[in-house]
Amino acid sequence: MIRSVAEHQQAVEALLRCSSYAAASEDLALADARLRVLAADVPAPVSLPPFDNSQMDGYAVHTADLGGARLRLRVAAPVPAGIEPPALETGTAAPIMTGAMIPRGTGAVVPIEKAVPSRFPSAADYDAGRDLSVELPPGTASGSFIRARGSDIAEGSLALPAGTLLSAPQLGLLAACGVGVVPVRRRFTVLLLSTGDEVAEPGTVLGPGRIYDANTTLLEAALQEAGAAVVRHRVMGDDPGLLRNALEGLEAEGINLILSTGGISQGAYEVVKQALAGSSVEFHSVAMQPGGPQAIGSVGDVPFLGFPGNPVSALISFEMFLRPALTRLTGSPAPRVVLQARLASALESPEGKHQVRRGSYSDGKVSLVGGPASHLLHALAGSNALVHVPVGQAGAAAGDAVTVWLIDPAAGPGVPVASSTPRPKEKQ
Amino acid sequence: MIRSVAEHQQAVEALLRCSSYAAASEDLALADARLRVLAADVPAPVSLPPFDNSQMDGYAVHTADLGGARLRLRVAAPVPAGIEPPALETGTAAPIMTGAMIPRGTGAVVPIEKAVPSRFPSAADYDAGRDLSVELPPGTASGSFIRARGSDIAEGSLALPAGTLLSAPQLGLLAACGVGVVPVRRRFTVLLLSTGDEVAEPGTVLGPGRIYDANTTLLEAALQEAGAAVVRHRVMGDDPGLLRNALEGLEAEGINLILSTGGISQGAYEVVKQALAGSSVEFHSVAMQPGGPQAIGSVGDVPFLGFPGNPVSALISFEMFLRPALTRLTGSPAPRVVLQARLASALESPEGKHQVRRGSYSDGKVSLVGGPASHLLHALAGSNALVHVPVGQAGAAAGDAVTVWLIDPAAGPGVPVASSTPRPKEKQ
Repeated sequence: MIRSVAEHQQAVEALLRCSSYAAASEDLALADARLRVLAADVPAPVSLPPFDNSQMDGYAVHTADLGGARLRLRVAAPVPAGIEPPALETGTAAPIMTGAMIPRGTGAVVPIEKAVPSRFPSAADYDAGRDLSVELPPGTASGSFIRARGSDIAEGSLALPAGTLLSAPQLGLLAACGVGVVPVRRRFTVLLLSTGDEVAEPGTVLGPGRIYDANTTLLEAALQEAGAAVVRHRVMGDDPGLLRNALEGLEAEGINLILSTGGISQGAYEVVKQALAGSSVEFHSVAMQPGGPQAIGSVGDVPFLGFPGNPVSALISFEMFLRPALTRLTGSPAPRVVLQARLASALESPEGKHQVRRGSYSDGKVSLVGGPASHLLHALAGSNALVHVPVGQAGAAAGDAVTVWLIDPAAGPGVPVASSTPRPKEKQ
Repeated sequence: MIRSVAEHQQAVEALLRCSSYAAASEDLALADARLRVLAADVPAPVSLPPFDNSQMDGYAVHTADLGGARLRLRVAAPVPAGIEPPALETGTAAPIMTGAMIPRGTGAVVPIEKAVPSRFPSAADYDAGRDLSVELPPGTASGSFIRARGSDIAEGSLALPAGTLLSAPQLGLLAACGVGVVPVRRRFTVLLLSTGDEVAEPGTVLGPGRIYDANTTLLEAALQEAGAAVVRHRVMGDDPGLLRNALEGLEAEGINLILSTGGISQGAYEVVKQALAGSSVEFHSVAMQPGGPQAIGSVGDVPFLGFPGNPVSALISFEMFLRPALTRLTGSPAPRVVLQARLASALESPEGKHQVRRGSYSDGKVSLVGGPASHLLHALAGSNALVHVPVGQAGAAAGDAVTVWLIDPAAGPGVPVASSTPRPKEKQ
């Protein structure tokens, strides 16, 4: 069956929605919950701020004194942060520090720089027992520079809804609320299985005609960057019976997806195809290059995807089908940044297929890295972008605009860089 | 001292360059090396591919037979992947599978779909001992559909240079080369220290006037997302002597930066300022809101930064100063995506300061989330963008273009989404 890229994207999305992912949650300490997704609403167990407090270093002024035209007040004992201060007496102004609890009776805080003198009395001033006073400007509005209890969030209200991805600000909020343990969804867990008689486990001696398994490492890293967990299966050879037995005997508890590489094409030894013949798994030819052969279905109750065995085909299959589906299902990872770029040189493309080339993007331009062949892993490792040539286009000329996805977790120079942008013209 | 944002950015960058970060490396297994940075050049210990192999399922044709006008060849035994095949005899064509080693004598591979018949003989055909033949088209160029040994990378040449960030493609390449352990730079390691008498450790009972420490959790998560490692110090109160003793007694081995929060402003109890008075640490007022007070220098030999104590100020200090400097020093994390967006509503800004507001970005528009106050952590947790209003601007109107940085690791809908873009018009 021939499928468009969009059709297979939708099929993979639908397959993942049928996985057991959404059902399972676990409780984690905040320090372990980074980039996990909340499994339930979390209400705020306390208000933030937990008490009225001062927004500035300044003087707390009594409500009864606020109306005065010109205020000369006796300086009371200072109010540091971290204690419960005594009530404020009328006719006095208490030095109060940012974040300190507002004394009872206070109507507003006047910032220290508006006071005369604009410095707090020293410890020596207090020790000398001087009768200290301060003059404050008139017209301070009630409530000025007071952060009211609950003005950020009120006790019992929703701090974070289920489905929230926990990044620094969310974890900081939970810590501020005194929440130490949160319910999160279990990671989407993928069992990875490379196939092929030629594929050798890393660390073994490489016999003639054999290659090391790159796909398990490649896809493990890609899946982990996408927030998923990985269980590695050992490499399986080209014996369909052995593979069938291995798949049927899997302890699939906690596995949300089985992902194989290799053995799904048109050759005489296509072990995945042969092992799963007669099962629900479908073998498609997707109008994409590389990555055309694709398998999709279930093994027992567990969703199953089969990617082609060439490493570049496997990674592009991941980027085109699995990564976007994970984003939609789990809220993580972030979608790839999509840009338009000018091609540095011409390319040809099979008109009936969506071609995905590897490129080096910088500053609005993209240069192709390596040819279209799907074994060029070194070229892939030296690229930071995927270059898309859609169906219906037989090529593109140098200077033509193409769509690129940035795939490098540290996108190179020329990509909009935060640190280079906010250097505004400064006024002197 | 008053500094511009750009001046302090440069100072933080220079400070980090003086850290001990670049000097230390460690050897890690590939599975543990994700998002780490290579500490040395890695040459390829093998060629990729390690041997000439077939790019297609097809027939291996002898060099001597390639010139023929019309080829009818006897079908030899098939060549599966994973073995060393016998030499090819002239006058024969060997079925060969993708990735299989090219037999000696082969001049090219002809794809199976160009053969007549276009299916390989079955096992039964061979078993019956029939004299099998195949007809192949003329004009096949020498070398066609053969992936030459070393055509991706040659043994001994540079696979990845020092400084490479190891993501999925790079780790896949190393696995393909049979490299199991790589030298990587040690993580940039930050000692985090919150200060303030009002700041309580999570898990303790919250006394009156006290708040839970949000900053350690907040900055720990932010630093980890930036690829750094964190050592948590316990919260220190407002006693300068105790803090000075703690800093002087630090086992700073392996610490690249000490980062404190709180105690660097203009109040009467600024514990960091008091503890480090007379040291090399400078206390600046950066023309930024929030996050104006900033401390920078060294404690002993260890670089030191002090951020303000309000959580929003601390995170914005991180985003504006420390995160970009880490990107430049360590090659990770990726710079923030920078976009122009239309403001949903008007805002005011202090003209002499670079204001950073929190916002919700979607589809080219940004709405402010919460006010400018720096204690609004719940609002920060509900935003996905920082909104920049540079120095010299007293405000902006609804509809005005502003610069935003996306800070959500899973940026919301409306951000260019990979999965929604490549759904081209498909030809039927």
